[in-house]
This record gives sequence, structure tokens and C-alpha cells, in this order.
Amino acid sequence: MSKQKRISDYVKIGKLPSGELNKITDVKGIRVGHSTIKNEDNRTGVTVILPSEKNMFTNKFEAASFVLNGYGKSVGLIQIDELGLLEAPIALTNTLNVGKVLDAMIEYEIELSAKEDEAIRSISIPVMECNDSDINNIRNRAVSKEHVFEAIENACVDFEEGDVGGGTGMKCHGLKGGIGSASRVIELDGKKYTVGVLVQSNHGYCDDLHIDGKKIGKRILEEAEQAELSEKGSIIVIVATDIPMSSRQIRRILKRVDVGLIRNGSYTTHGSGEVFLGFSTANVHPKDETPFYNATYLNDDYINPVFLAVGEATEEAVLNSMITANQAKTLKGKTIHSLSEYADILEKEFKS
Amino acid sequence: MSKQKRISDYVKIGKLPSGELNKITDVKGIRVGHSTIKNEDNRTGVTVILPSEKNMFTNKFEAASFVLNGYGKSVGLIQIDELGLLEAPIALTNTLNVGKVLDAMIEYEIELSAKEDEAIRSISIPVMECNDSDINNIRNRAVSKEHVFEAIENACVDFEEGDVGGGTGMKCHGLKGGIGSASRVIELDGKKYTVGVLVQSNHGYCDDLHIDGKKIGKRILEEAEQAELSEKGSIIVIVATDIPMSSRQIRRILKRVDVGLIRNGSYTTHGSGEVFLGFSTANVHPKDETPFYNATYLNDDYINPVFLAVGEATEEAVLNSMITANQAKTLKGKTIHSLSEYADILEKEFKS
Amino acid sequence: MSKQKRISDYVKIGKLPSGELNKITDVKGIRVGHSTIKNEDNRTGVTVILPSEKNMFTNKFEAASFVLNGYGKSVGLIQIDELGLLEAPIALTNTLNVGKVLDAMIEYEIELSAKEDEAIRSISIPVMECNDSDINNIRNRAVSKEHVFEAIENACVDFEEGDVGGGTGMKCHGLKGGIGSASRVIELDGKKYTVGVLVQSNHGYCDDLHIDGKKIGKRILEEAEQAELSEKGSIIVIVATDIPMSSRQIRRILKRVDVGLIRNGSYTTHGSGEVFLGFSTANVHPKDETPFYNATYLNDDYINPVFLAVGEATEEAVLNSMITANQAKTLKGKTIHSLSEYADILEKEFKS
Amino acid sequence: MSKQKRISDYVKIGKLPSGELNKITDVKGIRVGHSTIKNEDNRTGVTVILPSEKNMFTNKFEAASFVLNGYGKSVGLIQIDELGLLEAPIALTNTLNVGKVLDAMIEYEIELSAKEDEAIRSISIPVMECNDSDINNIRNRAVSKEHVFEAIENACVDFEEGDVGGGTGMKCHGLKGGIGSASRVIELDGKKYTVGVLVQSNHGYCDDLHIDGKKIGKRILEEAEQAELSEKGSIIVIVATDIPMSSRQIRRILKRVDVGLIRNGSYTTHGSGEVFLGFSTANVHPKDETPFYNATYLNDDYINPVFLAVGEATEEAVLNSMITANQAKTLKGKTIHSLSEYADILEKEFKS
Repeated sequence: MSKQKRISDYVKIGKLPSGELNKITDVKGIRVGHSTIKNEDNRTGVTVILPSEKNMFTNKFEAASFVLNGYGKSVGLIQIDELGLLEAPIALTNTLNVGKVLDAMIEYEIELSAKEDEAIRSISIPVMECNDSDINNIRNRAVSKEHVFEAIENACVDFEEGDVGGGTGMKCHGLKGGIGSASRVIELDGKKYTVGVLVQSNHGYCDDLHIDGKKIGKRILEEAEQAELSEKGSIIVIVATDIPMSSRQIRRILKRVDVGLIRNGSYTTHGSGEVFLGFSTANVHPKDETPFYNATYLNDDYINPVFLAVGEATEEAVLNSMITANQAKTLKGKTIHSLSEYADILEKEFKS
Repeated sequence: MSKQKRISDYVKIGKLPSGELNKITDVKGIRVGHSTIKNEDNRTGVTVILPSEKNMFTNKFEAASFVLNGYGKSVGLIQIDELGLLEAPIALTNTLNVGKVLDAMIEYEIELSAKEDEAIRSISIPVMECNDSDINNIRNRAVSKEHVFEAIENACVDFEEGDVGGGTGMKCHGLKGGIGSASRVIELDGKKYTVGVLVQSNHGYCDDLHIDGKKIGKRILEEAEQAELSEKGSIIVIVATDIPMSSRQIRRILKRVDVGLIRNGSYTTHGSGEVFLGFSTANVHPKDETPFYNATYLNDDYINPVFLAVGEATEEAVLNSMITANQAKTLKGKTIHSLSEYADILEKEFKS
Repeated sequence: MSKQKRISDYVKIGKLPSGELNKITDVKGIRVGHSTIKNEDNRTGVTVILPSEKNMFTNKFEAASFVLNGYGKSVGLIQIDELGLLEAPIALTNTLNVGKVLDAMIEYEIELSAKEDEAIRSISIPVMECNDSDINNIRNRAVSKEHVFEAIENACVDFEEGDVGGGTGMKCHGLKGGIGSASRVIELDGKKYTVGVLVQSNHGYCDDLHIDGKKIGKRILEEAEQAELSEKGSIIVIVATDIPMSSRQIRRILKRVDVGLIRNGSYTTHGSGEVFLGFSTANVHPKDETPFYNATYLNDDYINPVFLAVGEATEEAVLNSMITANQAKTLKGKTIHSLSEYADILEKEFKS
Repeated sequence: MSKQKRISDYVKIGKLPSGELNKITDVKGIRVGHSTIKNEDNRTGVTVILPSEKNMFTNKFEAASFVLNGYGKSVGLIQIDELGLLEAPIALTNTLNVGKVLDAMIEYEIELSAKEDEAIRSISIPVMECNDSDINNIRNRAVSKEHVFEAIENACVDFEEGDVGGGTGMKCHGLKGGIGSASRVIELDGKKYTVGVLVQSNHGYCDDLHIDGKKIGKRILEEAEQAELSEKGSIIVIVATDIPMSSRQIRRILKRVDVGLIRNGSYTTHGSGEVFLGFSTANVHPKDETPFYNATYLNDDYINPVFLAVGEATEEAVLNSMITANQAKTLKGKTIHSLSEYADILEKEFKS
């Protein structure tokens, strides 16, 4: 795993420095786990983001969502927008598996809270999705409760990227997509803060792929035709930070996710559900809070570096999701190549 | 069933005439089915609204949602708001059962479409919920695939109201709530059109209950104390019409649902997820539509009667959900009375 | 002025106690001023709400807006929704006078800030409006800079209600409308807080008018036919509080303004632009804030009394706007009566 | 004017063909007029977009707005979002001049409609703005009624770009900005349609400027330092098309405006109010429409080329606004250079 080549091995994306792992887990407390299904019939899975080491239901984080293109089936966002709070881990999977994964997450949360003598009666859990039906027999809904629990069990800081977990069956810019991540470190008032991004990438055309402004997609198509894929894709982006931000501010930074996607050549096509979820780990809201709470927040006048960090980390996370993913075959038998197969093009464009 | 007394047996709600059944099914083509679970551990269920006799996935209706209070866990609204289309039946159930019911609905849709040689790869299905954990052991997620299929099987025009289906475990204004419905008929350009409403009611305080402007809740509390219930409730409202309306217009009429709820005494409390979904059966969008489609729409300048119809039908549907529901016991053994037990108050207030 | 009879002289609206003046100015620091134009051609004016004794531009309050029905021409809300801050006083006037009033407010703000050596280059000022063209020759745009400055000059705590300032040409529920106000006091964590509401009322039908659940509009129509007015009306509602609330929370309370309007019999008709603006005086944001700020906020779990307070204060403010307004004549010469002319009905319904 | 060099003289932006003039006026019926103020104290002005040759108030177009960043003072969008209709021309000016320009537009509309015996009582007019206070003494509000009427008078199809009208005082990516335009032609169902864009550009940093993927901003900074400008900028984008689209669809295409801005290097900074307005000329709504109307609309499944057209035309319009603008001096005496001064860089990058 540690040997996965990432886009930073070829080119520095953006201006800002990355965190230690250059992953969303550079934001302290976050862990990510996968459960990957690769068998004759199915190539799919589930990825779980655990935002905190504590039980989120009794230790909520401020959060927001932004739906740039609602052609999607993600669930669990309504309450986040109303209350500005995230009260559970986030799961990423395929479109038709959302129901089963949601139910498994509910079961996990019931069991987790039972250990604290908390009898859950209601919980809002974000389960987000892209469509992997080019590669995966999606009607099987192959991701079961066991896979969800396994993904949670597997959660760690230095998690794998590429065709793993919810990213297993993804395609991106005509090549193989999947789970990717990146982070940026910025300084505010003399202190370092981290912005981390994780994507489940499943969008875009090869022809449009830009890397750091270069038309890499066109170069790739000059080398070899790529598999024809369903026009419909999507992208899920999770943004995390330890900067103290309100839900209003988190919604603002989510509106800059598109900066990264567009820099890579996307233009948010019709079928591409673009659904973004963000949270800040800075202010914890315990379940039985007092009538008033005191909190610290960023002043909006200082938000520009956070905007840039979100754009850059998204840009790099998508490219990481591509370059770390192994090639796959569509259900119709065509090969979906990996960006890593075109390392020569990257070497030539960026190293010479 | 046909003997269920309804609020119209006591008082005429509003100004506009009702349709034949005074139910959402007065809008032609709509059917509603329930599956009810009443055993030692659980009092819950699922209600399914079938908007059309045709497969919705290949014959979509224009639709919209409006989230007045997002403290809820309903799913399937993002895509409706983006595309303005409803492509599946709607299911109503309890909060923690949303995952299982969603997966069952997906299975139903896969099977249904397979019969038409349509291999579903992606579908957006609204599953909406209220919390019945005062009455029902909600952590069981007792509503299984079989119940969902049974509800669909049971779908009919002259459906039952009250403590049935998704309404089984509901409470409303301190009394028993559940499924309720009503309709209004209005004339536009010399032709009759119908607005139908179905609610799953689970909100409000007894003290606040107004019926046709009269403080019935206070009268009821003078007769007998009512069970103390969780402060948190919700209400789901489905609005259907055969008036040709765009998604923008449907969203406008959904903003008038609150007229009915407030007339009954609600003030949209914090814990009351108020989530509304509407559709028009007038313009059908086949799956493989041509690049351009031609459609007829209502001119907004003529929309006021529709607003009033939505308000009145919601007001009456909530009252119907209460008066048709039988009393129940909470998990703690307290009786939740039915509005029907206070028929004497209604008789006295409205008949004398 | 102090002799104006108000609705509380006839009936107690709602459950919660009022503040000392039962006006928006019970929230400390707020002042309201009018400039009223009554001449042969025009009956119109402008009302200014000064939220603070300090320069708002350098001492901003947290704020939000909610547009229930956007059929209106109010300006200055976009930035409030983005940044969650109010940085200027609020002006209320007639529809076609918005441009002139906005420019006058800009001039006032430039002059005010110049005194503090602050050279304003950009400022967002809410100017909100209803249409008084039944009574006022609206195409004249009779409200000039002098009137705006006069309204600001006149600002005081115990301000007048009724057919004054921006309310001069308003109609409401078929009778005379105008400026009205009310307040509610609630206790949170052992301390008293105030919610104040000010309305510029110009909406609704006489037939629909309810007061405390009683169909007063119908009683009035039994006594005398009322002037036929343009179907199109609107209502502007300003909500202020000293409870520390975030912009997200203020938006939530603005969604309960409708509770008051609907209790009075409105159903938010098509032509009725319903535009609401709210702010909290609790957390002040100085212009050159440090990168991080510390603030106290209400926990949403304790928000219900605030919701109820907003509903009740709105309900009472609308009734105050009507009962304090003097009758007027339409441009066509018909009398628009005042609710105060029907005091006998109120006496009979509420005092006997 | 016809000799203004445009970006297409150096490089082809995007994939799609342009219309005849490569301006918004390629959408038939649209005219654009400027009034430019350049004197010792002021460099500012107003640009008016006349969407139709008919009176818009009695011949409305379907329309929508999208506020990507609400840090701005544009007015007139609330009603467009509610009713989905544009009923007046659009004016672009500087931030503090919005009130005066709005009032002048109201006067123009009153006079225009009076000629048709239509006595306007209410009209919603979009007046949009950017802040030109680096170059222009903005507190003067130098744009008067006469300028607005002159801009309308000047309206034509082959209008000028650059430092004219509302664009006179604009800056963009550290260079001179202003009014720019572009168009794209796409084929739908065998017929040609046009998408036109007009921008008032006032946003971005020089360092970030990309043209067709190349880091031109960095090249320019290598040649010469640029004037330090206020961090705060904005961009207004008007999108027009003759494709029949509903307001929901127009809102969808406005969400792709950002594609163009980001391709040019923007990342939607905090102070950059990004406010977009779109309309379709295809379905005309007369003032006294019948209760139902019949219309043709694009099927969303065919919308991708429109998305791409909006992105590309925005990208090119911004570059046109820059390259056609002449250099200017800030109030502090620093030169703001024009992109046209760096034609050698463009020649070298794109022609060799």
C-alpha cells in the first residue's frame, strides 16, 4: 500500500503545502476504512469515514452539505443542513446499495450507542453514492451488513486509495476512478490548520482531463482509444478541517470544491451527481448541551486560504483516486485503463 | 373501513368542495397501500403511494419537494429537486426503517422494470419517515421487504386511514396520529381539477390543537390528562394534483402545506421534521423522450385556488389521520387516546 | 400616539408575556422612525429600523432572511444570506420607491461613516417594500432623500404604529394596514430575553381574517361591504432578538413568521411577496475583527419558545398594524376602513 | 470599435463554434448599450441589456438566477426565482450606484409602458453591480438617470466591449477588466441554437490567470509588477439562449458559469460576489395570459452541450472583457495595465 504512486510523485498540484500523509486523515481524529468486493459478479464495496474517535452521536461536529448537481441518490443531508451538525460516520457506496448500507450503519450506531447506555431512537447517517454499473452488477446490492462492519473495523489513518471500498467500481475521466484523498496545511493567526478532502470519483470524460493545466486526456487518447462508458457519472466529495467553522462557512467552502473538479477538466455534466459534505472537528457539541454554548469561529474575512485549500485538495484527491486505481474490466469485457498506465506521459509532461 | 368516521362528519373544513372520496386518490391513477405491524414488540408499518398505474420509472411525473424543517431522515429528494421529476412510488415508514424500506423498494423497482426488459441501474425512490418510538420498539426495524411488497400489493383507491401502515405508531397533537387524507376540487378555465393530500402525522401538542378555529385541544385536556410523549415529532405531507404544473410551481404549492398544519395549531417545533413532496400527474415524461417536449402548464396568476386547496386538504387530512386512528399504548404503558374518543366535544362544538 | 388602542386592549394574543412596550424596540438598542407623506396625490412614506445605537457598518449583527413568497422587490438580502451579517439599518417603503430610498440610505451611510473617518466603498442595505398603489400614486416615487433622513431623525423607542411611514398606504385583510409591532419575553437558562417583531402589512382578504381563532372578517363583512382592492399584496416582517443566535438559527425562526400570518387567516397568496428579515443583537462583529472570534449561541434544543414567540409576536404585530391605522380612501375614492371602526365586534367577541 | 482585438485573435477557447459576432447578441432580439463616464473624478458607467425588442413587462421571458457567492448588492433576483420570469431589461453598474440606476430604470419602464397604455404599479428590474472603487470615486454615484437613458438609447447588436458602460472602472485578474461577451452555437434535434454570455468582470488575481490552460498570469508578472488592487472583486454574468428552457433548467446552466471562471484561474474568493442571471427567449409569456399555456422545453437528457456552451462562452467573455479594455489609473495613481499590452506573450504562447 505504501508503495502506491500518487500524483505528487509527478507534479505538485497547487500552491499550498500538503499535510503529512496528504490525506483527509491529516485532520486529527479522522479514520477511513474500506471493504472491497471483487468476485466474478461484483466489483464494488463500501468506504466509511469515521470523523472522530468518539461516538459522533453524543459528540457532534458542525457540518454542511452542498448539492451542486442533484442527479444522485445520496441520503442523510437534510438534517445536516437544518441543524448544522454531523452526528454519525459517513459511508460511500454504489447507487443501488444505499438502502442496505444505511440499514447496516443504523445497526452499527445502535450497537455503538448501546455500549454507552444510549438507546438510539433516531439518527441521521449520510450514505453517499456513485454508480458503478459499468463494472459492477449493481442490481445485486452486493454490499451487506458484514462489509459495512468490516469497513468500520478496517478504519485507519494511513488508508489505501484507488479501487478499494466504495471506489472499487468507479470510473473517472474515461479511466479507472475510485477513492482518493489529499490535504492542505494553512496558517491562520500564527497557527497551522489542516483541510482534508476525500473523493469517490466517478465522473468526467477522458478528452477533458487536464492535469495542472496540461491536456493529459488528449495525450492519452492519442496513445490508445479508451473504453466507452456510460455518460452518467458522479462525484462525492468529503471535506474535513480542524479550523473552527460554522455550518454557514462550511457550506461556503463546499462551493469551492468545484474549483478542483473543473481544474481537472470537468464541467459538471447532467448525469454527474455532485454532492459535497463538509465538517469541522473544532467545536464539539455533546448530546445534552446546556441552553447556551460558547464557541470560536473563523472570521470570514480570513477564509480565502481555506477556499484555495479546498480547491487544491479536491483537485489532487481526484487525481490520486485515478493514479492509485488498478485497471478493471467492464461487464461487457472492455478494459478500463488506469492513469498509472500512462506514467510515461506524466513523466514527459511534468519531469522534463 | 368504510365506516370510519371522518372529520367531515362533524365539521366542514375550509371553503372548497372535496372530491368523491375526499382522499388523495381522487386524483385519478393514484393508489395507496398499507402493511401494518401490530405485535407485542412492534406497532409500526409502511404505506406506499403509487402515483400511476404505469411504471413510474419509464413514465415520470413532474414533482418537487419542500423541506420546511429538515430535522428528519427522509431520503430521495435531491434528484427530484434537480430534475423536477418523480420516477418511483413513495414509501412512508418509521425513522430507523428507512434503509430497509428503501432497499425493498429498489428490489421492487428492479423486478417491475425487468418485466418490461428495462434493467434498472439507478433509481431515485422517496422514502419518508416519522419517529414512532413512543409506541414502537423502533430499533427492531420491524418493517421488512415482505411488508413493503404487501403494502404495494394492497394498494387501492379507497384506502384505509388512521393507525395503519406507516401511520401505525404515530402520535399527533398528544393523541393518536397516523395516515390521513383529503382532497379539494377546483375549477380552472371551466374544467374541474383535483388536489389531493396524504399525511403521515406525528407532530404537535394537544394543548395547541385547533379545529376550524376552535380550541379543541384545551377542551380535551379539561376532560382528561393525556400521555406525555416525546417532544419530537414530524409530519410528512404528500400533495398530488392533476393540474398541469411545473416543478417550480409544485414547490410553490408545497410552501402552503403549512397553512393547514398551522390552522390545526402547530407551530413547526424544533424536533418536527416537516418534509413535503408534491407531484402533478398531468404531463408524463417517458424515459426516452425526444430532445424537446411540449407541455401545458398553469399560469401562476391562476394559482391561488390551488394554494387554498393545498392548505385546506392538509388541514383536513391531519384531522382525518387523528379521528380514524384507534387508541394505542406507549412502550411505557400509557394510553394514547384517539380524537374519536372525544366525539362528544366535537358534536357539542360543531353540531349545536 | 400613546392613546392608540392596540389589539391587546381587546384580546390577549397567544400564551407568552409581552415586553414593556410590546414593540420591537423592547429589544434593547433598537429604534424606529417614520416619515409620512399625506397629500393630494400621495399617501406613502418610509420607515427606518435602526438596530443599534452604534454605526452598524462597523458593528455588525448576525442576521438572516427568508423569502416565503418571492413575488416582491425587496433588496439587500443576498449578502445577508452569504455572510450572516447585517451591516446597515433597514428601510421599509413602497415598491417603486425602492431605488430612491436605497440611494438615500447609501448617502446616509456614507455621511455617517465619514464622521468616523470610514470611507465607505461598499455597503449592503436592506430596503423592503409593499405595494401601496391602491391608495398612493405610486409612479410618483414621492419618498425622497429628505423623507429618509427625516425618518432616521425621528427614530425613537416608543414609535407610532398604523398608517405611518412605510405603512401609510398599506391595506391588510381588506381593511387599512400599515406598520405594527409586538414583542414576547421568554426565559432561557434563568434569564429573560426578548423577541420583537415589526411588520409592514399589506396582505390578505377580509373574508379570511381570524383573530384568536374567531372569524372576525366574516363578522365585519356582515356589517358592511369593504372596498375592492387589488388582489396583490405583500407583507414584510422584521424579527429582532437579544438571544444569541447564528444566522442559521435566525433563518429557522423566520420560517415560523408564517405561524402568525396564518393564524390571522392568510394563506400566502400568489401576489403576496412575503419577505422576512431577522437579526440578533447579541454578538457584535466589529469591522476589523481578528482572524477568530468567540461567541455564545443558543443550543437548538432550546429553540421552541423562540419559535412560538416569533409566531405570536407576528400575529399580534399584524393586528396592531390594522387596529392603529386610520381609514383611508383609494385613488378611486372608495373608503378603506380601519379595524378600529369595528371595535364593537371585537368587544362583543372577546369581552363578553 | 470593430477593430478591437479579441481573445479569438490569439487562441480558440473551447471546442464549440461561436456565433456570428461571438457576442450575447447572437441570440436574436438582444441588444446591449453603454453609457461611459470618464472624467477627472469618475471612471464608471452603466450597461443595459435589452433582452427583447418588445416591452418585456408585457412579454416576459423564462429566467433564473444563481448566486454562487452572495457577497454583493445586486437587486431584482427574488421575483425571478419565485416566478421564473424576467419582466424588464437588466442594468449593470457600480456598487453604490444601484439605487440611482434602479430608480432610473423604473422611470424608463413607466414611460415605456405608458406608451402602451399600461400603467405600471409594480415591476422587478435586475440591477447588478461590481465595485469599481479602485479606479472610480464611487461615493459620488456618478451614474444618473441621463446615463441610464443614454445606455438604453445606445443599445445595439454589435456593441463595444472593454472599459465601457458598467465595465469602465472594472479590474480583472490584476489587469483592466470590463464588459466582455462571447457566444456558442450548438445543434439540438438538427437545429442550431445559440448560447450567449455577457460579463462585467471585476475579480481574480493576476498570478492565477490561466488562458486555455496556460499560466499567462505568471508570465505577465515576470515582465512587470502589477498595481496592487483591493482584494475584493466580483463578477456578474448574464447568460441568454434561444433554446427553450424552463427556469429550473436555466438555473442548472447558471451553475456551469463557474466552469469558465475557474478555467481562467479564479477560485471564487471571499470578496468576489458571483451573481449570475439567465434567460431564454424561446417562450414568451404575455402579461394577460390565459389560465393555461403551452410551451416547448428541452429535455434535460440533452442539456450537456448547453452546459459546455455556458462554460466556454463565460471563459471567453471574461478574456474578451480584459483584452478589449484600455489601461487605466487607480485613484492612487497606479497604472492598471490591459491584457492587450501583453499581446507578445499571447502571440508567443499560442501562435508559435
